[in-house]
Amino acid sequence: MDEKIYTLTDKIDNDLINNNLNESEKDELVKSLKVLLPSDAIALAQINPVSGDVKGNALKAFEWIKWAQKLELDAIVFPEMYLIGYPIGDFIDRFPVIVEENWEWLRALAANVHGKTKVIIGFVEFNKAKKGKKYFNSVAVLADGQVKNVVRKSLLPNYAEFNDYRHFEPAEVDSKNRIIQTGGNKAGIIVCEDGWNDFDFFDKNLYGVDPVKEVVNEQQPDYLLNCSSSITRAKKEQLKHNMLSFAAKKYATPIVYVNQVGSNECLSFEGASRVYDKNGNLCAMAKSYAEQFFIVSPSNGGKIYPLPNGLEKTLNSQKAFTLDHEPDLERTYLTIVQTIRDYFKKTGFKRAVLGLSGGLDSTVSAVLLADAIGAENVFGISMPSKITSAESKNDARELARNLGINFSEISIKDMYDSTRSKFDEVFTSVEKHWDCRYKECFTNDNIQARSRALILWGVANEFQSCLPIATSDKSELYMGYATINGDMSGGFAPLADVSKTKLFALARWLNKNREQKNAIPEAVIAKRPGAELAINPKTGKPLLAEEALMPYEFLDEVIWRVENLQQTIGDMMQAEFLHEKHLKENGTPLCREQKSEWLKKFFRRMSTSLYKWAIMPPSPIVDARSINKAEYRHPIIASKINYDKTTYEAKLKELRQ
Amino acid sequence: MDEKIYTLTDKIDNDLINNNLNESEKDELVKSLKVLLPSDAIALAQINPVSGDVKGNALKAFEWIKWAQKLELDAIVFPEMYLIGYPIGDFIDRFPVIVEENWEWLRALAANVHGKTKVIIGFVEFNKAKKGKKYFNSVAVLADGQVKNVVRKSLLPNYAEFNDYRHFEPAEVDSKNRIIQTGGNKAGIIVCEDGWNDFDFFDKNLYGVDPVKEVVNEQQPDYLLNCSSSITRAKKEQLKHNMLSFAAKKYATPIVYVNQVGSNECLSFEGASRVYDKNGNLCAMAKSYAEQFFIVSPSNGGKIYPLPNGLEKTLNSQKAFTLDHEPDLERTYLTIVQTIRDYFKKTGFKRAVLGLSGGLDSTVSAVLLADAIGAENVFGISMPSKITSAESKNDARELARNLGINFSEISIKDMYDSTRSKFDEVFTSVEKHWDCRYKECFTNDNIQARSRALILWGVANEFQSCLPIATSDKSELYMGYATINGDMSGGFAPLADVSKTKLFALARWLNKNREQKNAIPEAVIAKRPGAELAINPKTGKPLLAEEALMPYEFLDEVIWRVENLQQTIGDMMQAEFLHEKHLKENGTPLCREQKSEWLKKFFRRMSTSLYKWAIMPPSPIVDARSINKAEYRHPIIASKINYDKTTYEAKLKELRQ
Repeated sequence: MDEKIYTLTDKIDNDLINNNLNESEKDELVKSLKVLLPSDAIALAQINPVSGDVKGNALKAFEWIKWAQKLELDAIVFPEMYLIGYPIGDFIDRFPVIVEENWEWLRALAANVHGKTKVIIGFVEFNKAKKGKKYFNSVAVLADGQVKNVVRKSLLPNYAEFNDYRHFEPAEVDSKNRIIQTGGNKAGIIVCEDGWNDFDFFDKNLYGVDPVKEVVNEQQPDYLLNCSSSITRAKKEQLKHNMLSFAAKKYATPIVYVNQVGSNECLSFEGASRVYDKNGNLCAMAKSYAEQFFIVSPSNGGKIYPLPNGLEKTLNSQKAFTLDHEPDLERTYLTIVQTIRDYFKKTGFKRAVLGLSGGLDSTVSAVLLADAIGAENVFGISMPSKITSAESKNDARELARNLGINFSEISIKDMYDSTRSKFDEVFTSVEKHWDCRYKECFTNDNIQARSRALILWGVANEFQSCLPIATSDKSELYMGYATINGDMSGGFAPLADVSKTKLFALARWLNKNREQKNAIPEAVIAKRPGAELAINPKTGKPLLAEEALMPYEFLDEVIWRVENLQQTIGDMMQAEFLHEKHLKENGTPLCREQKSEWLKKFFRRMSTSLYKWAIMPPSPIVDARSINKAEYRHPIIASKINYDKTTYEAKLKELRQ
Repeated sequence: MDEKIYTLTDKIDNDLINNNLNESEKDELVKSLKVLLPSDAIALAQINPVSGDVKGNALKAFEWIKWAQKLELDAIVFPEMYLIGYPIGDFIDRFPVIVEENWEWLRALAANVHGKTKVIIGFVEFNKAKKGKKYFNSVAVLADGQVKNVVRKSLLPNYAEFNDYRHFEPAEVDSKNRIIQTGGNKAGIIVCEDGWNDFDFFDKNLYGVDPVKEVVNEQQPDYLLNCSSSITRAKKEQLKHNMLSFAAKKYATPIVYVNQVGSNECLSFEGASRVYDKNGNLCAMAKSYAEQFFIVSPSNGGKIYPLPNGLEKTLNSQKAFTLDHEPDLERTYLTIVQTIRDYFKKTGFKRAVLGLSGGLDSTVSAVLLADAIGAENVFGISMPSKITSAESKNDARELARNLGINFSEISIKDMYDSTRSKFDEVFTSVEKHWDCRYKECFTNDNIQARSRALILWGVANEFQSCLPIATSDKSELYMGYATINGDMSGGFAPLADVSKTKLFALARWLNKNREQKNAIPEAVIAKRPGAELAINPKTGKPLLAEEALMPYEFLDEVIWRVENLQQTIGDMMQAEFLHEKHLKENGTPLCREQKSEWLKKFFRRMSTSLYKWAIMPPSPIVDARSINKAEYRHPIIASKINYDKTTYEAKLKELRQ
């Protein structure tokens, strides 16, 4: 297809989404586009549904279907579970009325489908059999005013963020039933995970059946049509690309892949719907992080929109830990911004308030919030205590000015003093009954963090549609280096899946790549992180995080090894860390005792932080693996896990004799 | 078996658990017991594992196995997944080292099993095949120094609190492999859910296969041996009893059922291991809520320990909503007390601090805490504001005195005043930039709730091993009538699955049934609930919860209908509520407008409370269904769900034409 078509389809995108053409302009556009389209054009409806808003999703589908009909396309294809919204979680078990509703709306859509254009759309289907789960995860084919055919998903993922098998009955692969005619082409319908079980591509397969293989071998379709709702994660884009390309080439069959876009709480969908030709070449790709009415030709592909740098770069594999976060920063930025924006939009919140400490976490949070919901809707409050340095206050103020967000400075010294004197009264009273009072503890540190959260929640109580923001990052959460009802507290936590070293890189990237350059004061990025809640008696200066924990370069590699390689303490003692390499190069090698101590500290602190993870507010999943509740189920009482297999061997040996 | 045996087995229990016999006393006990035992005696190891503490669980098993060997029993049987602990969640995916460890300890146990006594024990097995999930949920048979046989679970529950299919590969039912010889009997091994799919007993089956049927029909075992880890919930005991009894009778085959005891975070296991004879009669039952080395004879049953009233009474079905919570109160009490106790023990906390308002929630929480961890380990702090009545202060003080818990009264008036004046400064500053300030809002209410939580967390920071307690109840959580960082905040929330009407009944029950009668001041139970955070301008008195929400009698029935009947607003408009019946009897019938308004309010408030549920601290699952995170996955962004199907029909009709 040529440039002319794309200019016109872009126009459709804009006019669909913004609805800013009058009727005669619409007719004009359709007329000029129709003559240019290839004979087998179909539309991929890369669209942002709202979970549970069945009516809203259906009415939006109506609009998009009308365009497809006017253009006399062969078909328009919506993502997996579009009509009910994905994820819908246990709502369908507890409120089956929404499944009834999605069935009613499906029939209403069908009643309006006539003529050439077929509609292929994901929904939730009741399973009426006596045996099996209550529902199927299905894709309906609408034509001639009816629901003509239903294709049921066979492979039901149930790991990480996936819970398909929880709600759905897996269907036998009925390859004949998966074939539908779009114009002159025979399409084989694949539902998301059904396309992720190639026996040659993967070393280990989760399922015993490969629906792609069965459909291709038994039915010889002209192309495969994969309806997906597949989230973006670090390194996943590369895997997906390789796998789809591999399958298209292996079977010499084009693959058309349509994906949801938009974010739903923790899950972010990047769109990037696409076509692979029969040689496995990526020959058409929709935008990332935007809705699109994307017209492609299964036989001839379509246009490749420029990939965002993030996606392009993550096509390169990352097999070892690296501090070079660069390839994933654009994707990280776009994912978090989309997730904040959609969380606010879909829950009805409009404004955010956060504490600005002049530190990295709150600074990057403020930038992302400003870009997601608009600077005018963000309120940053600098809340210095007596420990807060003049530099920190200035950095907070300068950042707010640069971003154009609202800003106040409110000292918490008096709040601290009055709480502290109240605490003296409380503790004196408690001490009459209880022993074991700590000699050194975090009480004073936490008064500061909690006084700040108290102010933020006060603002949220007093001003409409306002949500306080928790600023904790992933490295700190692993260490439990975050205060309950303090910096951990908020309605949303944008950075909970971003490690500290990545956060530094992201800050630099933002300064270079946002329209407004260098919004983040250089001092924020240059200084070493610290909570500014306590003084280090050894230095007389505010305690640095790395003094309280361990070097972030080391910590982040431990996290990376735990999440990606499932390593034990023993495994890690044997591996060379990047931090060790750097120290060696500097002539100050890390001794094994120190390394062992840090590793033990990591696992000890992680174990005692599990209860904090359980009460973290919602946050976006960004990394390849996360500690997000939507993905990771970790019983808090499992606090005695032995993360080092070397330590049980003596007792075992004794008992074996 | 006669009384003499039971006296002796009780002694074993005590001595196993408390380890208070010397070696010669042990020998004496064994000798006197051995002559009395039937020839086919086996021990059911009703035991409380710690998730992830593989070494601890294994060493405990060693002790119990030794007793079985000394007594020359045919077998000793441990619960499902005993060795690794259930639930273990995603730890086995992220830290496969603990699965390795459970395999190593299994072999160490096996190395010590010789002679007559076989050991049957649950563990997690690696799946080494290329296809399928990483693990099996398996039961090992240990004999002759080896792992003789492994039986793999076939039916993998994945609803509510269950996540089996998430981690385990379902195994084909290999009926021959499920048969093992214990002494002269052929036992057919069933793993928990494998026994919950009878095609005749259930109207709808989750799975297509019934392992019980296959094992009985193909192998004719002398008895079925079900290894379980099955939690207690309202009404589940009755279902379990009916189902096991039904199957034993249907197949004319005794069923021996061993269950885990103890609590793990949200999940409580009641034990109550048992034997059904071939006529379906319950003929032996172990204690509830206590570990027990329970000796039974598969052919002759054993003794029925008296059922706790709670369990006995819940054998009666409850098909309509009732305010008669009586039948479930003992079970509720025992479940929550065990869950608190085990949560503290397994996480290492020893003491609890909570605010005592003189209201029902904090009062009942204090009683349960005192019974779970000891009165000396509980600290109640009365924290009056200017709204708090003298009665409330007295009630709090009297309760503490009755229970013998530690007590202080600390006024928060000055904290309130200083925070309030700080807020004035903050809001004046915010108002310069932002409009839409609320005219009436909860800011002042919440200052009080959050000041109290600030004090509780301060105590937890300052005194070792101390956890603050959140006191919110189920009815309030549904309504979002709870303050973030206030009464919702804590390390554990004992009442989060207890509705308000049940809580009243529980308070009366505690006064009647605890060793110390009437510990709860009558005034606490007699007064109508209110948070004492705001004044009702209409009455000039503190605002009552029912004035802010709706009558609890009505509210709790809505919750019951949502959780148990999955009803819509339309369904509920057609049903007669108990509250309506009572009003009618009083001559003041409820008008439909009021009913409709309450129902809409319920669903509106529920939808906007989802984000609060997501950050609730851990709490016990008690009811038939709950909003506990371990069981209920509710994407927060699904805020536009239509809970009333009547409202979309007009638009649908239009589109169908």
